[in-house]
Amino acid sequence: MRRLNNSIEALAHSYLVQGIVNRSGGGALPNRESIMSILLGLNELLFPGFGGLEDLSHDLRLITGEQVYHVARDLMREVEKSVAFSSRKGGRFSCGKEGCRAAAELMVEDFFEELPKIRGALILDMEAAFKGDPAAKSIEEVLLSYPGFEAVMAHRLAHFFWIREVPFIPRMMSELVHSRTGIDIHPGARIGGSFFIDHGTGVVIGETTIIGNNVKLYQGVTLGALSVKKDEADLKRHPTIEDDVTIYSGATILGGGTVIGRGSVIGGNVWLTKPVPPYTMVYNNAGNQVIREQRADNTR
Amino acid sequence: MRRLNNSIEALAHSYLVQGIVNRSGGGALPNRESIMSILLGLNELLFPGFGGLEDLSHDLRLITGEQVYHVARDLMREVEKSVAFSSRKGGRFSCGKEGCRAAAELMVEDFFEELPKIRGALILDMEAAFKGDPAAKSIEEVLLSYPGFEAVMAHRLAHFFWIREVPFIPRMMSELVHSRTGIDIHPGARIGGSFFIDHGTGVVIGETTIIGNNVKLYQGVTLGALSVKKDEADLKRHPTIEDDVTIYSGATILGGGTVIGRGSVIGGNVWLTKPVPPYTMVYNNAGNQVIREQRADNTR
Amino acid sequence: MRRLNNSIEALAHSYLVQGIVNRSGGGALPNRESIMSILLGLNELLFPGFGGLEDLSHDLRLITGEQVYHVARDLMREVEKSVAFSSRKGGRFSCGKEGCRAAAELMVEDFFEELPKIRGALILDMEAAFKGDPAAKSIEEVLLSYPGFEAVMAHRLAHFFWIREVPFIPRMMSELVHSRTGIDIHPGARIGGSFFIDHGTGVVIGETTIIGNNVKLYQGVTLGALSVKKDEADLKRHPTIEDDVTIYSGATILGGGTVIGRGSVIGGNVWLTKPVPPYTMVYNNAGNQVIREQRADNTR
Amino acid sequence: MRRLNNSIEALAHSYLVQGIVNRSGGGALPNRESIMSILLGLNELLFPGFGGLEDLSHDLRLITGEQVYHVARDLMREVEKSVAFSSRKGGRFSCGKEGCRAAAELMVEDFFEELPKIRGALILDMEAAFKGDPAAKSIEEVLLSYPGFEAVMAHRLAHFFWIREVPFIPRMMSELVHSRTGIDIHPGARIGGSFFIDHGTGVVIGETTIIGNNVKLYQGVTLGALSVKKDEADLKRHPTIEDDVTIYSGATILGGGTVIGRGSVIGGNVWLTKPVPPYTMVYNNAGNQVIREQRADNTR
Amino acid sequence: MRRLNNSIEALAHSYLVQGIVNRSGGGALPNRESIMSILLGLNELLFPGFGGLEDLSHDLRLITGEQVYHVARDLMREVEKSVAFSSRKGGRFSCGKEGCRAAAELMVEDFFEELPKIRGALILDMEAAFKGDPAAKSIEEVLLSYPGFEAVMAHRLAHFFWIREVPFIPRMMSELVHSRTGIDIHPGARIGGSFFIDHGTGVVIGETTIIGNNVKLYQGVTLGALSVKKDEADLKRHPTIEDDVTIYSGATILGGGTVIGRGSVIGGNVWLTKPVPPYTMVYNNAGNQVIREQRADNTR
Amino acid sequence: MRRLNNSIEALAHSYLVQGIVNRSGGGALPNRESIMSILLGLNELLFPGFGGLEDLSHDLRLITGEQVYHVARDLMREVEKSVAFSSRKGGRFSCGKEGCRAAAELMVEDFFEELPKIRGALILDMEAAFKGDPAAKSIEEVLLSYPGFEAVMAHRLAHFFWIREVPFIPRMMSELVHSRTGIDIHPGARIGGSFFIDHGTGVVIGETTIIGNNVKLYQGVTLGALSVKKDEADLKRHPTIEDDVTIYSGATILGGGTVIGRGSVIGGNVWLTKPVPPYTMVYNNAGNQVIREQRADNTR
Repeated sequence: MRRLNNSIEALAHSYLVQGIVNRSGGGALPNRESIMSILLGLNELLFPGFGGLEDLSHDLRLITGEQVYHVARDLMREVEKSVAFSSRKGGRFSCGKEGCRAAAELMVEDFFEELPKIRGALILDMEAAFKGDPAAKSIEEVLLSYPGFEAVMAHRLAHFFWIREVPFIPRMMSELVHSRTGIDIHPGARIGGSFFIDHGTGVVIGETTIIGNNVKLYQGVTLGALSVKKDEADLKRHPTIEDDVTIYSGATILGGGTVIGRGSVIGGNVWLTKPVPPYTMVYNNAGNQVIREQRADNTR
Repeated sequence: MRRLNNSIEALAHSYLVQGIVNRSGGGALPNRESIMSILLGLNELLFPGFGGLEDLSHDLRLITGEQVYHVARDLMREVEKSVAFSSRKGGRFSCGKEGCRAAAELMVEDFFEELPKIRGALILDMEAAFKGDPAAKSIEEVLLSYPGFEAVMAHRLAHFFWIREVPFIPRMMSELVHSRTGIDIHPGARIGGSFFIDHGTGVVIGETTIIGNNVKLYQGVTLGALSVKKDEADLKRHPTIEDDVTIYSGATILGGGTVIGRGSVIGGNVWLTKPVPPYTMVYNNAGNQVIREQRADNTR
Repeated sequence: MRRLNNSIEALAHSYLVQGIVNRSGGGALPNRESIMSILLGLNELLFPGFGGLEDLSHDLRLITGEQVYHVARDLMREVEKSVAFSSRKGGRFSCGKEGCRAAAELMVEDFFEELPKIRGALILDMEAAFKGDPAAKSIEEVLLSYPGFEAVMAHRLAHFFWIREVPFIPRMMSELVHSRTGIDIHPGARIGGSFFIDHGTGVVIGETTIIGNNVKLYQGVTLGALSVKKDEADLKRHPTIEDDVTIYSGATILGGGTVIGRGSVIGGNVWLTKPVPPYTMVYNNAGNQVIREQRADNTR
Repeated sequence: MRRLNNSIEALAHSYLVQGIVNRSGGGALPNRESIMSILLGLNELLFPGFGGLEDLSHDLRLITGEQVYHVARDLMREVEKSVAFSSRKGGRFSCGKEGCRAAAELMVEDFFEELPKIRGALILDMEAAFKGDPAAKSIEEVLLSYPGFEAVMAHRLAHFFWIREVPFIPRMMSELVHSRTGIDIHPGARIGGSFFIDHGTGVVIGETTIIGNNVKLYQGVTLGALSVKKDEADLKRHPTIEDDVTIYSGATILGGGTVIGRGSVIGGNVWLTKPVPPYTMVYNNAGNQVIREQRADNTR
Repeated sequence: MRRLNNSIEALAHSYLVQGIVNRSGGGALPNRESIMSILLGLNELLFPGFGGLEDLSHDLRLITGEQVYHVARDLMREVEKSVAFSSRKGGRFSCGKEGCRAAAELMVEDFFEELPKIRGALILDMEAAFKGDPAAKSIEEVLLSYPGFEAVMAHRLAHFFWIREVPFIPRMMSELVHSRTGIDIHPGARIGGSFFIDHGTGVVIGETTIIGNNVKLYQGVTLGALSVKKDEADLKRHPTIEDDVTIYSGATILGGGTVIGRGSVIGGNVWLTKPVPPYTMVYNNAGNQVIREQRADNTR
Repeated sequence: MRRLNNSIEALAHSYLVQGIVNRSGGGALPNRESIMSILLGLNELLFPGFGGLEDLSHDLRLITGEQVYHVARDLMREVEKSVAFSSRKGGRFSCGKEGCRAAAELMVEDFFEELPKIRGALILDMEAAFKGDPAAKSIEEVLLSYPGFEAVMAHRLAHFFWIREVPFIPRMMSELVHSRTGIDIHPGARIGGSFFIDHGTGVVIGETTIIGNNVKLYQGVTLGALSVKKDEADLKRHPTIEDDVTIYSGATILGGGTVIGRGSVIGGNVWLTKPVPPYTMVYNNAGNQVIREQRADNTR
């Protein structure tokens, strides 16, 4: 296996020449495993026992203290790296080593102060899921086994960092839960209270989407953009969903001006690029399907 | 970072006030990590080597003994917690501490006696996958790399507990494999022999679905409900798929009375809310699409 | 729990009788965990830091050396098992114990020599993603949080082994990343440069698909087969996508003769089974949808 | 291997009949692994970085917070079990479930308040080691590689619990460091400031030993009891070593009345059962050895 | 770091040339980590909870079943390797691949049948420790924190394999516990009931030692050989200690004919190479020590 | 548990005030866990399989490559920290950040070039152990279960760094194996070929000891210093043992001028502070012991 030594040289050389090696050229980037560990730690802090901790009866306060410090430490490190990147690239932050650290510290403290409020919002989401799914036998079942709830939990955490313009971390959180649930919510999306996604695989919610209260989505729903031009990145490219709307599986709703009015119902597989007034029902006319007898073909 | 100490207090306080902390107020709930470990252990017992065990040549019986005892222990604990929850909430079980334990023990023993039969069914599923996919090069490849097979394996295990009305565990098993495969089969669904799901991402199979023998589904198929009223939760809300039916990708079939007759073929993206007689082919008429030349737009 | 001992016997017996136990009857099969570890190791080698390694500043060359040897060892073992399986089943390889080992060694050396080239292709894919997504804030963000990029990375690795007819390993790599991203690219697909999949959940790309340069896909796109007959497995069953094509979410394109001409744009949810000339735009006519006011129904 | 099932029954039966199974019959005992983890955690808290933590530069306070909560939680659990045992056996504590918990909580809080003081004492021990060993190149070397220092660190922690009559925990701490260093200090021993043990293997310091300031011991020194009668367990059975005494390797000093006066030096292998006045040197007369030429024997 | 590649070649070459690489040239040897894991597993089986298992209350029988199978599997593998080594080297065993496996299987079954008896002996040892040490506060303390007890536990297990002439395994067990306790008992030593070693560091008990019932040793005691000639390896080279003997710390007793008669007491640091009649006390005359005043020297 | 927060503050404060916190104030120190991992990795490189690696048959060269790179990386980091410490404290090294790194790199390369030679010396030590211990049944047994061999292996590695004046690392290696074996060899000791320590607990070999070829020691032997004055640290303070000497258990040999002449035998428990001519036997006269009948006392 002597040729391996040449491959080692070639790879090391390629890191120099092509230059996109992670963590070189000015500073480290956030660490995927660390962000995952932070996200799982926060789930556990929001709902102790969620991630597998046992025996919480007596010493819940000690566990909480330990977890807060532990997650704070990891988070501070990742936020600091992200803020420093922002500063290097001329983003929102502009700070030297100490200043970036101080900014990270402040942000982490703010974040933990916000956590009980996020927890309150999530409890409403949980209740919405219980009410919205006839198959749900108890509210505890939502906590333990609903991917839609897990995705919304990650979103409410990621959104905190998005609106403060921290690079990387919100997107990494979103993608981690996208990988686990098949639900892809951009951390920039603004989502109201009592939000529920059922089944969820294939759901995509774009960066500038606005969602009201008591909205319910099913699997495969896309809330996307019509335009994909890079220079329109700052515009509102994704739809607005008002309160009390339900959108069934596979529906596609595109465009920044596409407002789904309050109380509307969008049927499965519907394709929408224009606004819909309040209290409207939109559904596909299934008449365009061909039905014929067949015998021989289904050999499989 | 002194503000962290306040956040610790605030979180600990929120656990008391809002009261939905997992594992408080009467008893522990099943543990997600433990259910995952049980599911992986059962996969290994059904197909030794599936999960990565090496060197099975000589001592397969010793490994089997160890795994049976190991999984039985974990399972007993989780079943006991679930049965106790059922009893607290006035579910099917009504038992004190010892009685719930005895019920759990009995159920675990029953379950292990059923395992060889489940294994037999899974071998037929594997063969169906091999026959149904032209890309499958060998039956071993199905075992090692077909997510549809992995999802059906979890379903046949979860269904055992579902029909015995054990809370949480069947749904948690379903969601674990949903997370890994994008295939969401409710543990209540009744599925016949030689079942095959190809690719599978986005498949949803509802709680009261009934599926016959030799059925084949592709990615993105929904077998769902029309009604989502909570008070209709006990009705048959999802379709019935008879023997020898094939349903292509993205088809949506809704409603408890929607019976797809034996030997039918449902085309891709078809939307069905009414019964289809046996040996019928249903497909979309693609004629409603607009095709026009374009040049300038595809700037991306 | 004495009945457990009977279950141990019954399971051990079932392994003998039904005979599909992994790793018995002639030789071991590749190990899922090992393939996953290889894939993660290769990601790290392609983009040091990708998987979480810290502190790469000084000793990148030492880490590279260690990783190359480590991955080479694991890979050699798995390739050898796969080659031996191929030989037993009359596949491309025909070798005894020593010969299969030598073939595995040669292939692993070839593979590592190819790695820098694969890395070069992936850097182009990364740039394509950055250009193609208005929401992408930096090219580093693509590396850290784009599932489409992760799926293409796995594909370019898996494809190396596919074209050399190594059983199992390419499919297992594809499925591992399918599980993480919801993107199912058959390792046989031939994919050109600067390829980008956005969001990605539900994408299926079949075995004989051919994709040109600068192609962009969105979530839920299927590039599939019309025929599912086992005896047509060797034909070209999946479409050809020429350079500079964009395919929006949920589009389904089927058939080996279905060529999407250069520069075309395929709209969301479009269903195509016939060729499309270059520079063509195909989209659904949304006119077939029913919109009506509704009030009482949306009780949820 | 069917006989194994019989062995399982026989072992399970023996647990019932012979009845000394740990954790049955009234309550759990402290957990060895947990005590070890507590001890290592405390070492890390006393001297951050001692046990391997890296990157302490910035976030030392966050790490400290996490570690204090983490160790406090583990310690509370083990102290509670020990206090409950004491109560069951009629020891110092007499408490019900809640009372024992409260006693444990109080003790843990006291303990952490004491830690900075213990840290102060250990810094003096470290300096004594540096001064006392010509081979010590730096004070940091003592911290990183002196088993005598590690043993004294464990002793000062264990002694806290011993004087509060907590069963098990002090002895378990002592034995853990005995296992690592070969130095066996009973947690009851009262040890003054600036204490140093060099090399240390084989040192035994008994329960009622009293040691002054600036004492130095070498390997193999025994400070033991003359009497081993069970009914004399409460008497002072072990010697008193006054300030500024040095005891060389292998010396044995026995008996509760054996006081080694201030400033004395006890030579290697000396055997002492009687008091020695201050500023005395005791050593073996080496004259009783036989020296003769030999040739043939040393064949080995 | 290019010179590393040369070092890799040189090391690989040295493995070929000097030829003592473990596991090459004919067969694997037992694995140190595996033997350690077996030993810890057996400790746990003998005294459930010993090694840290929690929550044994309900499912002790399931844990026992799992542990027996687990340890049996590991043990079988290691015994088989050892028996095969014995066969290759012309030792007691003479067997081919299948025969060695069968011999290992039989031996492991015998061993587990013996375990309850070994457990009975250890309970007597535990009681002897409690009675023999005035510092022992409870019998549970012996179980949790007496290294002498841990060493005897390992010895009684190792001795089982020694008398069946299994190579490596008994010595490896002895050395593992020697490393943890500083007590070096050769697995060939024959030790009676109710045996107790206090403190224990430095104790050495040779291969052909015979020890009666109710014997008590202190730290640093050597029961060794006078002769170290290789060709006398089969003779009785180590002493015989009759019932009810106590040997204090540092005593050295050498020679195969050196019988310490029943009920005798051997004092600390005594050196014995000749038999001692029953009920005899042997101790050092401390008279040969020099005591003089000193002032200036103890500068340290 | 609110008092814990005060304790966190107090500890954090104590780190500032007392100032000996590891890794603050100028630079990190070597990491104990890392040194342990390096030592175990080197053992594995010297004797593949020693530490538990299985399945070395085919891919030994790949494993060797991986291990060399892995250990080199860890070692480089620790050596660099040590060299930088030396430079800060005015030790042998005087270098800036880059220079210290370069020095570390050079030293690691030198070290790996030396490894095959160290391996050669260890094979001779192994043979000496086999010849010197009548209880040794095979040379493989020495490799797998002789603590004396393990200690010498660590010494020959540590000594490499000692003679190059690298701080910390050699002492940490010595202490790690001291902890495992009870054998305390200062890394400065110069030890000839074919060296064997039997049993070994309690052996101490001082910094300036010189040992010739074919020397054999037993447990409890001290080769120590007479003087413990700090200002004599650079003198030869420990004895010289010439070729072919055997020293029995418990012997104490002190002083830099104490030369034990070639071929001599030092008996058990002998105390020597003066030179002994070649081919001399020194042993204790056991005549000074008191033997009397006893009955009543041995109550224990």
